[in-house]
Amino acid sequence: MRPAGRAAPEVRPIKLTRHYTKHAEGSVLVEFGETKVICTATIEEGVPRFLKGQNQGWITAEYGMLPRSTHTRNQREAAKGKQGGRTLEIQRLIARSLRAAVDLQTLGEYTITLDCDVLQADGGTRTASITGACVALADALNKMVADKTLKTNPLKGLVAAISVGIVNDEAVCDLEYIEDSNAETDMNVVMTEDGRIIEIQGTAEGEPFTHEELLELLELARNGIKTIIEKQKVALKD
Amino acid sequence: MRPAGRAAPEVRPIKLTRHYTKHAEGSVLVEFGETKVICTATIEEGVPRFLKGQNQGWITAEYGMLPRSTHTRNQREAAKGKQGGRTLEIQRLIARSLRAAVDLQTLGEYTITLDCDVLQADGGTRTASITGACVALADALNKMVADKTLKTNPLKGLVAAISVGIVNDEAVCDLEYIEDSNAETDMNVVMTEDGRIIEIQGTAEGEPFTHEELLELLELARNGIKTIIEKQKVALKD
Amino acid sequence: MRPAGRAAPEVRPIKLTRHYTKHAEGSVLVEFGETKVICTATIEEGVPRFLKGQNQGWITAEYGMLPRSTHTRNQREAAKGKQGGRTLEIQRLIARSLRAAVDLQTLGEYTITLDCDVLQADGGTRTASITGACVALADALNKMVADKTLKTNPLKGLVAAISVGIVNDEAVCDLEYIEDSNAETDMNVVMTEDGRIIEIQGTAEGEPFTHEELLELLELARNGIKTIIEKQKVALKD
Amino acid sequence: MRPAGRAAPEVRPIKLTRHYTKHAEGSVLVEFGETKVICTATIEEGVPRFLKGQNQGWITAEYGMLPRSTHTRNQREAAKGKQGGRTLEIQRLIARSLRAAVDLQTLGEYTITLDCDVLQADGGTRTASITGACVALADALNKMVADKTLKTNPLKGLVAAISVGIVNDEAVCDLEYIEDSNAETDMNVVMTEDGRIIEIQGTAEGEPFTHEELLELLELARNGIKTIIEKQKVALKD
Amino acid sequence: MRPAGRAAPEVRPIKLTRHYTKHAEGSVLVEFGETKVICTATIEEGVPRFLKGQNQGWITAEYGMLPRSTHTRNQREAAKGKQGGRTLEIQRLIARSLRAAVDLQTLGEYTITLDCDVLQADGGTRTASITGACVALADALNKMVADKTLKTNPLKGLVAAISVGIVNDEAVCDLEYIEDSNAETDMNVVMTEDGRIIEIQGTAEGEPFTHEELLELLELARNGIKTIIEKQKVALKD
Amino acid sequence: MRPAGRAAPEVRPIKLTRHYTKHAEGSVLVEFGETKVICTATIEEGVPRFLKGQNQGWITAEYGMLPRSTHTRNQREAAKGKQGGRTLEIQRLIARSLRAAVDLQTLGEYTITLDCDVLQADGGTRTASITGACVALADALNKMVADKTLKTNPLKGLVAAISVGIVNDEAVCDLEYIEDSNAETDMNVVMTEDGRIIEIQGTAEGEPFTHEELLELLELARNGIKTIIEKQKVALKD
Repeated sequence: MRPAGRAAPEVRPIKLTRHYTKHAEGSVLVEFGETKVICTATIEEGVPRFLKGQNQGWITAEYGMLPRSTHTRNQREAAKGKQGGRTLEIQRLIARSLRAAVDLQTLGEYTITLDCDVLQADGGTRTASITGACVALADALNKMVADKTLKTNPLKGLVAAISVGIVNDEAVCDLEYIEDSNAETDMNVVMTEDGRIIEIQGTAEGEPFTHEELLELLELARNGIKTIIEKQKVALKD
Repeated sequence: MRPAGRAAPEVRPIKLTRHYTKHAEGSVLVEFGETKVICTATIEEGVPRFLKGQNQGWITAEYGMLPRSTHTRNQREAAKGKQGGRTLEIQRLIARSLRAAVDLQTLGEYTITLDCDVLQADGGTRTASITGACVALADALNKMVADKTLKTNPLKGLVAAISVGIVNDEAVCDLEYIEDSNAETDMNVVMTEDGRIIEIQGTAEGEPFTHEELLELLELARNGIKTIIEKQKVALKD
Repeated sequence: MRPAGRAAPEVRPIKLTRHYTKHAEGSVLVEFGETKVICTATIEEGVPRFLKGQNQGWITAEYGMLPRSTHTRNQREAAKGKQGGRTLEIQRLIARSLRAAVDLQTLGEYTITLDCDVLQADGGTRTASITGACVALADALNKMVADKTLKTNPLKGLVAAISVGIVNDEAVCDLEYIEDSNAETDMNVVMTEDGRIIEIQGTAEGEPFTHEELLELLELARNGIKTIIEKQKVALKD
Repeated sequence: MRPAGRAAPEVRPIKLTRHYTKHAEGSVLVEFGETKVICTATIEEGVPRFLKGQNQGWITAEYGMLPRSTHTRNQREAAKGKQGGRTLEIQRLIARSLRAAVDLQTLGEYTITLDCDVLQADGGTRTASITGACVALADALNKMVADKTLKTNPLKGLVAAISVGIVNDEAVCDLEYIEDSNAETDMNVVMTEDGRIIEIQGTAEGEPFTHEELLELLELARNGIKTIIEKQKVALKD
Repeated sequence: MRPAGRAAPEVRPIKLTRHYTKHAEGSVLVEFGETKVICTATIEEGVPRFLKGQNQGWITAEYGMLPRSTHTRNQREAAKGKQGGRTLEIQRLIARSLRAAVDLQTLGEYTITLDCDVLQADGGTRTASITGACVALADALNKMVADKTLKTNPLKGLVAAISVGIVNDEAVCDLEYIEDSNAETDMNVVMTEDGRIIEIQGTAEGEPFTHEELLELLELARNGIKTIIEKQKVALKD
Repeated sequence: MRPAGRAAPEVRPIKLTRHYTKHAEGSVLVEFGETKVICTATIEEGVPRFLKGQNQGWITAEYGMLPRSTHTRNQREAAKGKQGGRTLEIQRLIARSLRAAVDLQTLGEYTITLDCDVLQADGGTRTASITGACVALADALNKMVADKTLKTNPLKGLVAAISVGIVNDEAVCDLEYIEDSNAETDMNVVMTEDGRIIEIQGTAEGEPFTHEELLELLELARNGIKTIIEKQKVALKD
């Protein structure tokens, strides 16, 4: 039995609160159950040096956790003097995932930075971040069209992400912390709204997994993401 | 005329939301108008090395701003690889202020870390942090008494802080960002609930100020803090 | 047509030279075509702090590239003062992959560090690293049994890795640099010798990919890894 | 009774030795009793990026302590790899204080850096630094006028600083180390020669202090600074 | 008796393998007995800022050791976050030595970076590095002439280096690790092919040494370097 | 003709002021002409980890330059966040040189740290540092004997250092800055009072130098050091 009596394919209650803070061009509080992340999108003119003069834009991302977003306090990365490997890995994943949602040529020479800061962690912070960042990004791009910075909206479609895994020999969707820390296999999947795959990252924490298990996990992920993208669409209509 | 039609001695609407996140022993969202800071208190056994064996506790603090808590995005300190001078100065101030509220001998060999993370900045983030951190600290200490970790509550009384300043030749209380960035003089005051001073930090940003102006600012601060401490008391009663 | 006339499912010539340097307990030069990586295994007594007293061992990994292992010179990470996100991501992957090959309880309180240093890069350095590190690890563990440090060999089986991808709309196995830099999709797969999956990391660099493409890539990976594990077995018999 | 039989309002013997080292445009050894600080002023063309094109100059400051300027050796900050919070706080204070002494428009696009390096510490190093740096700054500005770099001297007047505090329930002026480490309250005040306040920073190290105590400390500071500014004037006349 | 029965003035077998890796403009594996170093030369347009507009080139060097090039594993400098003092000292020595071999005016505004990475250490890594780097540099410069980037070859002559020392009261040439770690005196000498001295660095590890011992060591060095330069010439003829 | 009309073998006026600051166990201001360095010796119980339990002591050193000790201002290393290669090289040299002066077994488990901080630079700061640090060390060791911490003085004899070089084709002793920056060859020599060599570091800045030139430089160094050691002896007698 899963915590809170959830069925294996069931995602947690998902909530997307737009305009959560006032300065950013896009600002979304995303909640997957007890996991809460602020995602902001910042538009800046110009592109990183390696893209100069190529007539295209860039999407980048940064990720952080408040020190006490977790059960026990984590040392603040700014105080440690560097971002850890997990942080860098997650923010690279977020950036890649969102770049897949945007036509960078249409964006033109602008950089959009997606900051995902975890207020409260309960499993799935990276997939919540991608999901929330996509809505913040959509808001920022809509703003660029509305204020005539851009003629065409460069958003190619929504993207969302979910974690799936094998816990107690059962494939389940949207793991919360207690499940995540006991998972034999943990997989994060990022998909477009038409069901194509942007990223798949599966790790055998305990025993290696079989091809059949992989297929089962993918099926769960596909359905979970479908549900989440519905939530994004509703949120963006408000 | 001040923004939002405030009178010179008037503080902004102040809101203290306790139990804002679930993991920390104390967790408060403090709002001074549009300035919003999450303050969490974390209890850990043991003390820093320089206090070992002295039979007393320690209160420390860390401060950070989300990159897009401000009008334009600030570089993430974790990515830069160090905390700036302003950050270090503020977190040292928060820690000193809260240590003045606690009997460290009664606390015993525990360390309480106050994390103040700014979600949205609109002036006065350091004074809001001190004010919110005091409530988070009170919650953490109450918890230690409730679960019998401590017999006596080491809290000596509440502390709160306010910024005052001279803007357009007028002494005003609780500056918001637009005022702060035009202030000739900016002063932060931290006081106990019985009106004694813990910290006073006044800076002439433009012209140096006179003794009379200092007295006028102090009077504003004293009244502002009185109002704020009432809010803390109400919040702690809920 | 692929470079060097390779067929889509064909892996490059793979060479594993054991005892490549003399100090390490395991030392292997692994070559996947023109990609060359030195993999060494170092045995040290003791385990990291978070494992103390748990009666088990640990496998960790570090990865680096010589500054001129690439077409143009990369800045030396030691001179920059930090390891980049890509480096950290790869060394975390190597470590996780190899931990899946070892029974950490049987290993006991020893730490084995796998250093993978790229002498020459031509695509697939991370999968070559995992493949070579597994042989270096096997040598180190055999040595521990031979000198009676361990009674039982904790190696559960061999692991190997391969990159697969979609290049010019065709799914191909073991991408070299020129292919890798033009791939629409890039996927790294790590498997055990009995064909189960340890890691799967697929990224749409260009267009998102379909479920069918994923299955096709997995099939290529499975066959490639089978070939590579044969090479490992031959090398270990010499 | 104070050490060396000083009366409560009495400052220590103050000595300002100009031209202490030969390369800097201004170079002063300042001594407040046993506290000794070298203050140098360096003139450089140009201004920091955030001031480019605004037709004004800039004053900045850096502070350091020789490792064995103190009773026991402090770790060298260059070896630690970062400046501590106390150092950053002090150098920010020195810079703000001296900027208040200069008309930055008249200075034009030059940056003057004030380096304050403590050779021997015995309390009051930050206030000695401000006092000495002001003389070094005056020398540098006079030089700019003398060599016709500037037509008008941008110095608006002298500034000086003193520490005051409550030790053994008595308000005293210019605390030396043994007093400082036992003070209940410690306050640093920076003033102009016409008695206006540039900075006031008061901290209750032990018990919070009252409004009356604050007034008493301010009175001591005002008189102390008057004495010090006389010394600066005499030194600048030599 | 020396290890491997070497006579006091005898150098170890020296091997220089050119074109060891494929991307660099010069790439040499140098072996002094069991000491093995990859030396690559990278040509880049432009010069460091302090040489801009002076119509001359620059030669720089970086040095590193693979973590397990030594008997016990050394922490990776990239992971530590900085290059140690020994590393910086050696790479400065390599760069100075090779700059003495080149007419920087003739080179023009190009920078050549020599990367020396130790694969296996058995004493004398810095002198092997200089020796190998000179051959890599010669290859890079020949390439610049061959492809008409330069009209005249800026190489003024070959340079090579050797370590000499006093071990068990006997002056010996080309110390291997076991000798080096027991040497009373250790001296590194860099010379041109016409026998002039570029660098001499002698250190009394145990007892200070006499003028006569210095002369004896210099004589050994001179002969050793003669032998090595012959090897360089042979290698460059292949 | 040399600056100030010095003859080729003549050293600058050398001054050693003991007890220059009051906290350190040894504190010396050393002046070689216009070069001025504060050298302090700090005694601390215990030894670095690699010497634990070996019943011997340790001598270490740190070196720094005040930012404006030089003609133009150098960036403060503490602000840059690391010590440069030149600094590390010099402090390693100072430490090795002074270790040669002390019987570490007799010292017992104490560490003496020599801090050499340059107040004013005019050539020869490293050799002045070694010379001054030796006197500070002697004072610290005498103090340990005087207060019965040690029974026997572990100082084996004095050590001193000088720079020599070839300037305008002439070999000269004790180069000041203007000579140093034009030297073809620059050599630093450290010797014991009985004329044996501890360190010799010669560098051809311009043309490589001959064996005969080396001998000539050594002769100058030997005589210069003799003069300096006399000064040390006189200073220590006061």
